Amino acid sequence: MANKEMIHSVIFNLKHAKGSEEETRFIEDGRSILSSIPVVRDFKVYRQTSPKNEFAFGFSMAFDNAADFEAYNAHPLHEKFVKERWESEVENFLEIDYQE
Amino acid sequence: MANKEMIHSVIFNLKHAKGSEEETRFIEDGRSILSSIPVVRDFKVYRQTSPKNEFAFGFSMAFDNAADFEAYNAHPLHEKFVKERWESEVENFLEIDYQE
Repeated sequence: MANKEMIHSVIFNLKHAKGSEEETRFIEDGRSILSSIPVVRDFKVYRQTSPKNEFAFGFSMAFDNAADFEAYNAHPLHEKFVKERWESEVENFLEIDYQE
Repeated sequence: MANKEMIHSVIFNLKHAKGSEEETRFIEDGRSILSSIPVVRDFKVYRQTSPKNEFAFGFSMAFDNAADFEAYNAHPLHEKFVKERWESEVENFLEIDYQE
């Protein structure tokens, strides 16, 4: 399974008010920072619209294999984003990893 | 938002034993039945491998718009699969809808 493509996604809520500048800034900074990490493919920002879960946003991205996903997790840009933005601006979240 | 593409997915656990014939049958019947519904695009079966949630499998599919998703939900093949298979063989699940 380690050599198969992965789809990693995270669904989340922000502490910021809906439609606020802070909300837009977090989403756009997340998009630009995380999608710039070289192993990341097909980075997408979504609205999570199912009323059957509690989350409002989703980030989704693809990796060629599990090693690339590990490289993303350990990448300084990812670690910095998590520490400086995610931990203070995200209310709650759920991670989902898909492998065929 | 109604006219935008949607990615619908559901992560779930089965009541069947891991690696059992019943497990394989559910997954393959789900794939063949649900992917045969005409509005469904890019139907995929995944293993859900993140240790940060409790679910083992994922079905993912795309729809051109919310009306196609509604047509899928109301389609007799979907309703029959939910009633005859999903409700009796699935232990627990979470639905996620993504719209750009």
